[in-house]
Amino acid sequence: MSGTREEILDQIKVQGDLVRQLKAAKEPKEKIDEEVSRLLALKAKLGGDAPVNQKFTLKTPKGTRDYAPQQMTLRQGVLDKIVQVFKRHGGEAIDTPVFELKEVLTGKYGEDSKLIYDLKDQGGEILSMRYDLTVPLARYLAMNKISSIKRYHIAKVYRRDNPAMTRGRYREFYQCDFDIAGTYDPMIADAECVKIVAEILDTLDLGEYVIKLNHRQLLDGMFEACGVPADNFRAICSAVDKLDKSPWEDVRKEMVDEKGLDGATADKIGEYVRLSGGTELVEKLLADPKLKAVPNAVKGLEGMQLLLKYCSLLGLEKAISFDLSLARGLDYYTGVIYECVLKTEPPLSLPATPIKTSAQNGGDQQDQQGGGGIVGSVAGGGRYDNLVGMFDPRGKAVPCVGVSIGVERIFSVLEAKFAASKVKLRTNDVEVYVASAHKGLHEQRLRVLNQLWQAGVKAEHSYKLNPKLLAQLQHCEENQIPLAIILGDAELSQGVVKLREVVTRQEASVKLDDLAEEIIKRRPKD
Amino acid sequence: MSGTREEILDQIKVQGDLVRQLKAAKEPKEKIDEEVSRLLALKAKLGGDAPVNQKFTLKTPKGTRDYAPQQMTLRQGVLDKIVQVFKRHGGEAIDTPVFELKEVLTGKYGEDSKLIYDLKDQGGEILSMRYDLTVPLARYLAMNKISSIKRYHIAKVYRRDNPAMTRGRYREFYQCDFDIAGTYDPMIADAECVKIVAEILDTLDLGEYVIKLNHRQLLDGMFEACGVPADNFRAICSAVDKLDKSPWEDVRKEMVDEKGLDGATADKIGEYVRLSGGTELVEKLLADPKLKAVPNAVKGLEGMQLLLKYCSLLGLEKAISFDLSLARGLDYYTGVIYECVLKTEPPLSLPATPIKTSAQNGGDQQDQQGGGGIVGSVAGGGRYDNLVGMFDPRGKAVPCVGVSIGVERIFSVLEAKFAASKVKLRTNDVEVYVASAHKGLHEQRLRVLNQLWQAGVKAEHSYKLNPKLLAQLQHCEENQIPLAIILGDAELSQGVVKLREVVTRQEASVKLDDLAEEIIKRRPKD
Repeated sequence: MSGTREEILDQIKVQGDLVRQLKAAKEPKEKIDEEVSRLLALKAKLGGDAPVNQKFTLKTPKGTRDYAPQQMTLRQGVLDKIVQVFKRHGGEAIDTPVFELKEVLTGKYGEDSKLIYDLKDQGGEILSMRYDLTVPLARYLAMNKISSIKRYHIAKVYRRDNPAMTRGRYREFYQCDFDIAGTYDPMIADAECVKIVAEILDTLDLGEYVIKLNHRQLLDGMFEACGVPADNFRAICSAVDKLDKSPWEDVRKEMVDEKGLDGATADKIGEYVRLSGGTELVEKLLADPKLKAVPNAVKGLEGMQLLLKYCSLLGLEKAISFDLSLARGLDYYTGVIYECVLKTEPPLSLPATPIKTSAQNGGDQQDQQGGGGIVGSVAGGGRYDNLVGMFDPRGKAVPCVGVSIGVERIFSVLEAKFAASKVKLRTNDVEVYVASAHKGLHEQRLRVLNQLWQAGVKAEHSYKLNPKLLAQLQHCEENQIPLAIILGDAELSQGVVKLREVVTRQEASVKLDDLAEEIIKRRPKD
Repeated sequence: MSGTREEILDQIKVQGDLVRQLKAAKEPKEKIDEEVSRLLALKAKLGGDAPVNQKFTLKTPKGTRDYAPQQMTLRQGVLDKIVQVFKRHGGEAIDTPVFELKEVLTGKYGEDSKLIYDLKDQGGEILSMRYDLTVPLARYLAMNKISSIKRYHIAKVYRRDNPAMTRGRYREFYQCDFDIAGTYDPMIADAECVKIVAEILDTLDLGEYVIKLNHRQLLDGMFEACGVPADNFRAICSAVDKLDKSPWEDVRKEMVDEKGLDGATADKIGEYVRLSGGTELVEKLLADPKLKAVPNAVKGLEGMQLLLKYCSLLGLEKAISFDLSLARGLDYYTGVIYECVLKTEPPLSLPATPIKTSAQNGGDQQDQQGGGGIVGSVAGGGRYDNLVGMFDPRGKAVPCVGVSIGVERIFSVLEAKFAASKVKLRTNDVEVYVASAHKGLHEQRLRVLNQLWQAGVKAEHSYKLNPKLLAQLQHCEENQIPLAIILGDAELSQGVVKLREVVTRQEASVKLDDLAEEIIKRRPKD
């Protein structure tokens, strides 16, 4: 049966192609009609009802997943809270297509470009799936000549990476980005991005966290001060980025053996990257003779000083740490860089060791996972002042700074938390279930439901004519529906129905006409 | 400069490929390092700041668009209202990946399959972008062995169709689907889908509308009664589907000339498909000798009778019309079919003639545009009892019925409505803007903002150190921010600030400590 069906499907394909060819060639109508009728006959052979024996495994593509109602409820709760924070800071939403012209993405991600999903060339434009939300933002700003915006964007991005789904690392995953574009005075917008990350982490109640801060100009200046050749800055930066999960010895080895640095230079770097602290560290480094001699280092340190001061005014002292080991992978950062790491152990099944998005590239603004600490990064970002200029025909730059919240990681943490607590999230909002006490009441149910829906009450019932009362009440319990209306001929003849609290099983007699009002009255206040 | 830059980019590409080859071939480290350093030197040549002269047009892919903040606000408002209705009926949300294994989509869309976006074969699975949300739902139900669910799904789908963007027809567009899956008694769930469409149209306030109803079994029975050969049912059905935009003469011509029907049979069909009405029409047709003799026709009519009765109990008499010309394109419908059409003229620039999603296929459940009337379809759907079974290895069927809301069409109507009204939608929710009356107050602003944000107040300020007061107040007016706090040394020395209503320009003196409380007190009640 299955073989025959496949043969027919093949024949349909061949016949369909033939018909299209004939139509394209504008062959005589008779000829086309004849072949069309053969095609239809073939299709009729299949029938509509015959089940197909699937030859392929029934699954979602590698590295992707469906969200079931429970997961959707959790996810929506997290996203709502994040949006609330974004809006508290004046963020406006935008959206861009899921794919871009391939050229838009070309040359923006370095070696990670190989992880981009391309679309098949089906004639017309050559397209690729978006890899993050930052490059589409830069394209949007340049295309629309927008020189300032405070925007957020929550959407899925795509990376042909090695998935580790139990750890929250997917090929299709959400990013929640907040970026401030515009020419402003130093560090005011940058500090607000730190504040936003802290507010989100606080509202999501994920335990203790630290927001690490560093500055690309300081890193470059420090490399220069240590004697790293300029054309080796990015490579050495990428090695430093691995310090969050590798010991210094391994990183030093990479610098010396793989990246050709001499040992003495590496050791000088080693002294610096182990430092972390607050304003006192900035002052110490500003007094450091080697760094003082390098303009980039001084500029970076002065930037950090200002950032730390603003962060302090925003009540963030305890949340932040100036950390010279923070490097981040993406080339496009030009100023401050951030990364937020959870300090407490992840609950339950979550991995004790963090995983990188990409083996080659040490974390970036849009990391779903990123590095850092035991638990891994849940947010990251930085300043990128030259990306928009890459899209502008005249190279007009729009300075930008932004953060990206690693929500997949957060979903994973919360899913584990809920699994441990055994709390079952409600996946529907139904306020009242309309039940029949006995047979023959389905029309009455529809009348009552219509009345409730018109009043804006969230209500449902069984789609069976004569469901058992027990089954109906069980449905309420399983779905945590707080109220049930029980229709019965005896009560209906007096114009009343029973209104039952599902948990307490308390029942009250309510007039049919007052039903919607009574249910609205019982709504929990918030 | 641009030429040189491009040459370097080409060299980087070649050099990058070389490095990857060497790594893949596990060549000696020295050799790889040498080539890596050449690659880095090339990249350094580019610098970070040099603007790129774009060779390609800065645009989104054909048939797609960005959503600017104004459009996002409108869109979010529409989607929120739709979700509210879905939840009122107990809907649970699910989500599925944006792409599926190609085989999942194969054989589900007939000739429209050519409109599916395929992904490039980059090794691994062969993938296609989802074409609608119905087939992914069927895959989801079969894969997870779910035999009943009431789910909604709001997401973008992809069709390589001929775009007509001013008319709301895109290659990337939203679908809002509500489907009820499960084995239930006839027409109870089907009637609720009609109710949902009516509630959504009412809440969106799009003017008068009619929900056309028909039944696939009745159509088949009617074709049989008229003498159409069984293997020609779908082709004739597809011709009938064009009646919403072509006169009967043209449709008859297609039936006779293209689909090989004899003229007398076509004329019999012509008698029926011109009929529309209510229960009285069902009764008339149940008494029709030709139809009475065909079991499919009788079953379809009995189904319609029940559906109309339930719709009447749900207060829908005035919204619905039993319409024998409604056919819908997709093959998979097995029972009731719906289509909702706006009765009033579209405002402004919208087209007077409706456009089909696909020239070959006359409308389907997921039509973004569909046919019907002058204004075009804004919702459609029907019952498809065999689709899930096509995915189940044992062919186990899960009966389904659902509706899809054509939100892109609705967005277009509302965008035109707003453009006409000249009302500017607010794109941010900021409650209060913190302004400086004179220089040197940026640290004070940060302190005040921190206090407001901690209290949950939506607040923003200028990212400049010393913005002009006029510019700050103008920002409030342009962005419809209702309140402004004006900081000045004189007031601050007394522990107070000015709180200004932007529209009335009324000012009050408020203690710094009471600021958040005072702003919360002034929130509009809803």
